Amino acid sequence: MTRPDTELRKATPGEKAVVLVSGGLDSATVLALAREAGYACYALSIDYGQRHHIELEAAQRIARSLGALAHRVIPLDLSWIGGSALTDRTIAVPNAPVPGIPVTYVPARNTLFLSLALGWAEVLGASDIFIGANALDYSGYPDCRPEFIEAFALLANLATRQGIEGPGFRIQAPLMRLRKAEIIQTGVRLGVDYALTLSCYDPDDRGAACGRCDACRLRAQGFAAAGIADPTHYQSKLS
Amino acid sequence: MTRPDTELRKATPGEKAVVLVSGGLDSATVLALAREAGYACYALSIDYGQRHHIELEAAQRIARSLGALAHRVIPLDLSWIGGSALTDRTIAVPNAPVPGIPVTYVPARNTLFLSLALGWAEVLGASDIFIGANALDYSGYPDCRPEFIEAFALLANLATRQGIEGPGFRIQAPLMRLRKAEIIQTGVRLGVDYALTLSCYDPDDRGAACGRCDACRLRAQGFAAAGIADPTHYQSKLS
Repeated sequence: MTRPDTELRKATPGEKAVVLVSGGLDSATVLALAREAGYACYALSIDYGQRHHIELEAAQRIARSLGALAHRVIPLDLSWIGGSALTDRTIAVPNAPVPGIPVTYVPARNTLFLSLALGWAEVLGASDIFIGANALDYSGYPDCRPEFIEAFALLANLATRQGIEGPGFRIQAPLMRLRKAEIIQTGVRLGVDYALTLSCYDPDDRGAACGRCDACRLRAQGFAAAGIADPTHYQSKLS
Repeated sequence: MTRPDTELRKATPGEKAVVLVSGGLDSATVLALAREAGYACYALSIDYGQRHHIELEAAQRIARSLGALAHRVIPLDLSWIGGSALTDRTIAVPNAPVPGIPVTYVPARNTLFLSLALGWAEVLGASDIFIGANALDYSGYPDCRPEFIEAFALLANLATRQGIEGPGFRIQAPLMRLRKAEIIQTGVRLGVDYALTLSCYDPDDRGAACGRCDACRLRAQGFAAAGIADPTHYQSKLS
């Protein structure tokens, strides 16, 4: 029952990959998977004016601890676009589930992040781009679905020199069809220290998680379902 | 012989469009076409660390003169990616045609620009995104071809809330199959003042064109073929 977007492709010797690393749990797991698959990993984080800026410090710790050969933190201000609770501080982060696409959706975010990864991958000569998109235990974002990843792969191979004249690009989203608990079990098996990661949409200045936002809820449920102690530092006891 | 990407779609009353405006001849013409088609136009320019930074001043003059309702100049540094004569000053701009994709190709540039336009369009509630891509008298860039535009339109409608739940997006590239002379004739008919535009990849500090790069050559040939006096300010007489 594997699908192209879930089956992790092993690297050939020396093959490079750009891995999008947000500082969260999912992308840390993806970096560990890419390394295990044999890729020389180049970690890319985007400073997009996010509310949870402290996650970029988490991204640095993760890239270092999981052996990325380089880690770039690139500024791409999305606050001028707005329209999201993550980039516009006048929009509150919800602390209960809502139907439909939530206000934490950031217009065109994964499209932009993959596009930056694509540009860097082309200059590095990297064949693969990894992203922690997940279609099961996720927040309902349109740009986390397999059809989005497939469309981006098609685009990447039309948009670039390497796509037309060279070996092309693969977009790997190996978490796409995993439950959060399976993601956590995978990462623990690969030695990911989830205490380094930050998932919360609304952490305090010291990086402590709110325990109430979508990201916190999915994360806590994942640890519980996996039967693994949750190493997250919360702002206060969960009610 | 029209194709979807060449046929300019008229706006319904009040319909908005985001128009990518570089400061060059093509995108100025596209802005004039979008306005003539009835769109409320929002001009977007990207400050990507380009060698020809002075073109952003041209973009401002053009957006103002052609009645854009707003004009945003957004920083998106691509010099860290490098790999192009336009973003890496250690790579020279060629002054004679070369076979294949030239070194002025900027990896993932139009993908990134369209992605930024997409994010803004979604927040504005704009249905249409205009880009001056052209597949005939162009420099051989992969991301100026109709198949690229079609793939981006597919992606845009999978990546976004407006694509899934709303009216979707159209990517309009009305110059795609025009010769440079036809583009110039179109713009002159619509009142574009091409003296405001800057096409050169390597202008001097005052915005005078080199007359030798790909962009200068295509532009000069276009004016000659159109039988229209070339208003470009050159650095010196063309040899």
